[in-house]
Amino acid sequence: MNYLYIAEFYNLSITTLPMKIVVLGADGYLGWPLSLRLLRRGHRVVGVDNLATRRAVEEVGSDSALPISSPQERERAAKELGDFKFVFGDVTDYQFVKELISSEKPDAVVHFAEQRSAPYSMKDVEHAVYTMHNNLEGTLNLIYAVKEAKPDVHVVKMGTMGEYGTPNFDIPESAFVEVEIKGRRDRIPTPKFAGSWYHWTKVYDTYNMLFANKIWGLTFTDIMQGPVYGTRTEEIVSERFFTRFDFDEVWGTVVNRYCVEAVLGLPLTPYGKGGQTRGFLSLEDSVEALRILIENPLRWDPTGTSTSS
Amino acid sequence: MNYLYIAEFYNLSITTLPMKIVVLGADGYLGWPLSLRLLRRGHRVVGVDNLATRRAVEEVGSDSALPISSPQERERAAKELGDFKFVFGDVTDYQFVKELISSEKPDAVVHFAEQRSAPYSMKDVEHAVYTMHNNLEGTLNLIYAVKEAKPDVHVVKMGTMGEYGTPNFDIPESAFVEVEIKGRRDRIPTPKFAGSWYHWTKVYDTYNMLFANKIWGLTFTDIMQGPVYGTRTEEIVSERFFTRFDFDEVWGTVVNRYCVEAVLGLPLTPYGKGGQTRGFLSLEDSVEALRILIENPLRWDPTGTSTSS
Repeated sequence: MNYLYIAEFYNLSITTLPMKIVVLGADGYLGWPLSLRLLRRGHRVVGVDNLATRRAVEEVGSDSALPISSPQERERAAKELGDFKFVFGDVTDYQFVKELISSEKPDAVVHFAEQRSAPYSMKDVEHAVYTMHNNLEGTLNLIYAVKEAKPDVHVVKMGTMGEYGTPNFDIPESAFVEVEIKGRRDRIPTPKFAGSWYHWTKVYDTYNMLFANKIWGLTFTDIMQGPVYGTRTEEIVSERFFTRFDFDEVWGTVVNRYCVEAVLGLPLTPYGKGGQTRGFLSLEDSVEALRILIENPLRWDPTGTSTSS
Repeated sequence: MNYLYIAEFYNLSITTLPMKIVVLGADGYLGWPLSLRLLRRGHRVVGVDNLATRRAVEEVGSDSALPISSPQERERAAKELGDFKFVFGDVTDYQFVKELISSEKPDAVVHFAEQRSAPYSMKDVEHAVYTMHNNLEGTLNLIYAVKEAKPDVHVVKMGTMGEYGTPNFDIPESAFVEVEIKGRRDRIPTPKFAGSWYHWTKVYDTYNMLFANKIWGLTFTDIMQGPVYGTRTEEIVSERFFTRFDFDEVWGTVVNRYCVEAVLGLPLTPYGKGGQTRGFLSLEDSVEALRILIENPLRWDPTGTSTSS
């Protein structure tokens, strides 16, 4: 079988059966390298994107510092690694999402298809409302599509460490936490306090998934990932496999942007007051962590206790 | 002065200067009687509505059990009590909201202009997305309009007791609460867990206002009110002043609906499992509580500590 051949070729050990995985946002900084990793592991990947990030980066007069291929060229390159298909589509179109889940019947859906820039969301009311609509509607559509078409799908959703703000307690790796309030104990959703409209949309997605898990038993893994840096993974071995590398103030994540600014001798551009402390993750570690999560899903439990975050 | 004459006539004691108040959702169950109360107190009222509730109640094949006047007739009736103007407009139109605040320069804005039915929000994905968009966008537009046009406006926003779910702790009358998590103390937004997409929009509005208060120092009073029942206030003395009375399963709030069902000998129709316990408020008490809140505003504090809820 194809996946065994690939595993041997790359000296990977395959311990799970090949899965069919839909990656929403497959044209993005993380979506593209994750798709390559999943293909190399022998999984079938349906990559979905509306190419919004390409347009939005143009909107602020910028471009990826590394040249990235067209979606058509990416599809050809990905097919060398395994069973890949690119689908142009928008997660804010419910009929599209519903038909995607109905027809592909994936084992897992990875949801990266959100507006991902805090500064972009804070530009003005138009960008705030766009971010709120786009992100919440995509996740709501996915929730309903999974509920209607295939409720045992494992949804892997990208959140952010920024959902937590900077609390005084140790951030737990759980959706709920035990607290004491005025002498009484309760179990509450892990407290959040975001720092931009973008980060708030991630908080609201989290609550919407917790609610959908509670009432319908759908299965979510809600990933609170720190900022990712870097350009390479094991699969990115030539220009055809490059992922985007944004470096401007709006779309460049912090370490990537600082590297470009340092190389060019420009002043570093911290966002806000620059007082945040965060854990950072290399692109390779991010992709590998996601791969492990996807291959080791929570079991679907219609009684509604399977959400982790 | 007009307001003193009215105060004497109705035997009210006026202790505050007359204010100019914009009521968003002035055609609604609470918006209309509150407008009448504020007028009777000598305040100038600009009543704004897009008449969405009239249409949405028609959508489910229902109608107000008490006949309500047209917006034009309501305007004429309200003008007998004081300085009233009806403006047709939609809070999801940012330019409209911005121009409203710029031109009217109100002392306070009461924001009732949201989709207000939990069952309506839970019908299907279309109603879920509509509720999420409509409610969050209206409040975001208001936040930005106030920030841009008149940042000292006191925004009085209708939330719901349903934001809290059914916690095990005593619900505090504050936006933040001291907690202990794993042996460490912190101050977190008062925990919430809603029971419908509609209720979640109220939670998200709350967080959006907390955030706008934090970064821009805007002043909000976020009212967590229990379900309201009844048809009368001191101002509703004839049919021309009637407020709407919804009794169907989608738009009728619980006590009002039960009363109609009991009178007609129909089975009572609890929502969900019927296990909720709630405090209930008469229409007269609700309107009077809101009046007191509006006349005793928090002072604008650009340093950002003035939000209460």
